[in-house]
Amino acid sequence: MDLNADLGEGFGTWRLGDDDALLDVVTSANVACGFHAGDPGTMRRVCAGAAEKGVAVGAQVGYRDLAGFGRRHIAYAFDDLRDDVLYQIGALDGFCRVAGTRVRYVKPHGALYNTAAIDEAQAAAVVAAVVGYDRTLPVLCPPSSVLAQLATGAGLRAVAEGFADRGYQASARLVPRSSPGALVESPDDVAARAVRMAVESTVRTVDGADLRLPVESICVHGDTAGAVALARGVRAALEEAGLALASFVQPSEDQG
Amino acid sequence: MDLNADLGEGFGTWRLGDDDALLDVVTSANVACGFHAGDPGTMRRVCAGAAEKGVAVGAQVGYRDLAGFGRRHIAYAFDDLRDDVLYQIGALDGFCRVAGTRVRYVKPHGALYNTAAIDEAQAAAVVAAVVGYDRTLPVLCPPSSVLAQLATGAGLRAVAEGFADRGYQASARLVPRSSPGALVESPDDVAARAVRMAVESTVRTVDGADLRLPVESICVHGDTAGAVALARGVRAALEEAGLALASFVQPSEDQG
Amino acid sequence: MDLNADLGEGFGTWRLGDDDALLDVVTSANVACGFHAGDPGTMRRVCAGAAEKGVAVGAQVGYRDLAGFGRRHIAYAFDDLRDDVLYQIGALDGFCRVAGTRVRYVKPHGALYNTAAIDEAQAAAVVAAVVGYDRTLPVLCPPSSVLAQLATGAGLRAVAEGFADRGYQASARLVPRSSPGALVESPDDVAARAVRMAVESTVRTVDGADLRLPVESICVHGDTAGAVALARGVRAALEEAGLALASFVQPSEDQG
Amino acid sequence: MDLNADLGEGFGTWRLGDDDALLDVVTSANVACGFHAGDPGTMRRVCAGAAEKGVAVGAQVGYRDLAGFGRRHIAYAFDDLRDDVLYQIGALDGFCRVAGTRVRYVKPHGALYNTAAIDEAQAAAVVAAVVGYDRTLPVLCPPSSVLAQLATGAGLRAVAEGFADRGYQASARLVPRSSPGALVESPDDVAARAVRMAVESTVRTVDGADLRLPVESICVHGDTAGAVALARGVRAALEEAGLALASFVQPSEDQG
Repeated sequence: MDLNADLGEGFGTWRLGDDDALLDVVTSANVACGFHAGDPGTMRRVCAGAAEKGVAVGAQVGYRDLAGFGRRHIAYAFDDLRDDVLYQIGALDGFCRVAGTRVRYVKPHGALYNTAAIDEAQAAAVVAAVVGYDRTLPVLCPPSSVLAQLATGAGLRAVAEGFADRGYQASARLVPRSSPGALVESPDDVAARAVRMAVESTVRTVDGADLRLPVESICVHGDTAGAVALARGVRAALEEAGLALASFVQPSEDQG
Repeated sequence: MDLNADLGEGFGTWRLGDDDALLDVVTSANVACGFHAGDPGTMRRVCAGAAEKGVAVGAQVGYRDLAGFGRRHIAYAFDDLRDDVLYQIGALDGFCRVAGTRVRYVKPHGALYNTAAIDEAQAAAVVAAVVGYDRTLPVLCPPSSVLAQLATGAGLRAVAEGFADRGYQASARLVPRSSPGALVESPDDVAARAVRMAVESTVRTVDGADLRLPVESICVHGDTAGAVALARGVRAALEEAGLALASFVQPSEDQG
Repeated sequence: MDLNADLGEGFGTWRLGDDDALLDVVTSANVACGFHAGDPGTMRRVCAGAAEKGVAVGAQVGYRDLAGFGRRHIAYAFDDLRDDVLYQIGALDGFCRVAGTRVRYVKPHGALYNTAAIDEAQAAAVVAAVVGYDRTLPVLCPPSSVLAQLATGAGLRAVAEGFADRGYQASARLVPRSSPGALVESPDDVAARAVRMAVESTVRTVDGADLRLPVESICVHGDTAGAVALARGVRAALEEAGLALASFVQPSEDQG
Repeated sequence: MDLNADLGEGFGTWRLGDDDALLDVVTSANVACGFHAGDPGTMRRVCAGAAEKGVAVGAQVGYRDLAGFGRRHIAYAFDDLRDDVLYQIGALDGFCRVAGTRVRYVKPHGALYNTAAIDEAQAAAVVAAVVGYDRTLPVLCPPSSVLAQLATGAGLRAVAEGFADRGYQASARLVPRSSPGALVESPDDVAARAVRMAVESTVRTVDGADLRLPVESICVHGDTAGAVALARGVRAALEEAGLALASFVQPSEDQG
């Protein structure tokens, strides 16, 4: 089982989350690439740290929107979105090369993540960027999403991820942040849900039913207070349950 | 002899210069990478066009300053400049890969070009970025500049360039734009100077003396009215003088 | 009758349209405020020119999106949009004060114009910004739009405008740019439509029917080839039809 | 005596310092205006809070450099710097008007502060912006600086400020951050220095001599850990010494 988190989401003088601490917990780091967050210096440091600790680096690509942190939908033209995504992947890959590794996967951020999960045009633009850059890069996305379908259809590997600290609806979509049950707050509950996702491919929905949710990675959030402790709890619980934690990308692939 | 020009210097809705026309004239295209100019869509188009026409793509790296077009000096910290340059090289290389080619060289833009010619710290930051990314990439710079010296010292190839349409001082530095003789305006004079640089490694200074100026590339400007005609004139004159026009990077190196 | 156009839409080294020429034609200048276009130097120059020529300055407020020129929809939160609009009005007003005048009205740009015409939340955010800044400022908008209704409801003056060079549907909405009949290209036709709008408050729709369209201002575009000539043609035709051209804001209001 | 601090220095999702807590301590708030920090929403909130608590708002104007937080020198052309400063003052004044107050003074930030203290061209550009916008606005600056001289010469009021937590050289300039003695770390020492500046117009230099330093305002930093506690300590010590804390702008001037 893989454990991923968003890293490198500061910009310039501003910091967000504890990158160093999270690099000791996760097996995959979604590194912001400069459009919604992430300055070049931060990208360099996080890529170097990830390489040193054997954490896989993914390009956390987002809308060009520093002021909105990539969290508000932008009605991009197809070509513009594809090219903005491609730009970000290339930029991050430069820092990976310097660190002796490579970008290992791509994960859309924020509003792009949500939109690409349901919108064909934006999902297709993300897929086109990955196909253009490197067809061997997996795309990390929600199970059964439009992005997963288009990625698979284009010959890419779609890696499904689950959120241990978020509530799920029967449709397998997340409970919106504005609704009750959106967040699972007890660290014990979060850890237990992660283990159940990993072992049984199942999650309890906000309505109390069991939902089948086969995932290859579990996402923990890094930008909230207590995020690192929560992530450590998830990792410890998964290990206690006998699961080997490892990136979904084979180490043997990491020959640069 | 190589002929280079700045391309892809628009941004979003704004255009600057005639990229398509220049791609038919030059052998090396310095492509803006998004920090002082150059949006991802433009980068994609110029890289694709260059690849199709056999023009070598160079990363025209600049300060992060869209509002100032990279033309005003910024007192970067060493690490920040190195990482900003690295980011830009990686981003452009992504579009080159998609186009079936690679970034072939690096050329600083505007105030960074001028500063790196005389300032050790900024020159060293540019060199560190290139060394980190790919030691086989040449750096295009003024002859005898600090950048040329540091690049050579670090094991990089420094490629000297001359400006056929600019006045030179006895020190081999350009006449400042604010001084008389800064610009050579007659197309015939520009072409003649280019030929003399290429054939005799010599240029007539603003004081009327002959200056030895061995260059491997001649730069023509692309952003002024009449730029394309001027560039065509230089190319025609060089060919008439029997010079073979080709990128300073060997075609055989272009194996991706 | 008022004649308005978008001005000051360059950014840094990049130019768009002929601001000086348009200032001799229009009675109202929609000046870009730096978020989708318009750098401070351009804002200063256009405001100074407008003040000198007695042209009313309006704040052409847009999304924060230089790369997209404010032409792609962004799903702003209400507060964020209101504050971004307010910021732009204040910034432009500073240059107006220096030029001895004031911002006289507000006109949303691009995707914000289109969205505020039909979307209550974004229209309300624009209205809230204007109400907060200065309740005496009119809002320039499409007739019968949501923005016009909310502005009127909030006690603001809504000034309706028509487009002489765009096709209209029976619904009084513009023919989308991707559909046939979107653009009226003959200068004579454009001028004739402007006169009919001004004199008869009527426009011929793309289906050939007459549509009542009472407007207080006619918008001419400034960023296309031939834009200035087209604008001059409209002005000449309106004057020939005996219409007095003047800003919809009373000169007597301009007491700073 | 006035107590000032930098506020509103976050951007978008990123926060810096505790604006609310500082508004209860200072008498003048230097509010970032969006170029080196400060998004419109933050500007609105800080202006509203300052108005409510009777704190004077100053425009903390900086270079256009979010990535560098305005802390690296930029070789602006005179016109460009004047217009960038003017833009920021106008933008902030919009939020002040909405909050029922006005921009009360101008203080350059970071590298602009340092440069304008010694460089005539940049100091003159700041002065020109203030003169153009509103000649009644004081400029907050180091005592005996070039900025103070040019401001006074242009008929502006120059308000001198001291730094209680920074070491001084015999020249009245600050000890550079990279040198020993740059920072005074003991809260008691900081408070004692503030009192001595206020009561005796004197500060002990890094060399142990007494330096005459007549100031009308004392600056406390807001962006470091413990900043709020330090600021409270300075305020308490000044009050204990019998000094009335009040903005250097007369309340009676605040008639909008």
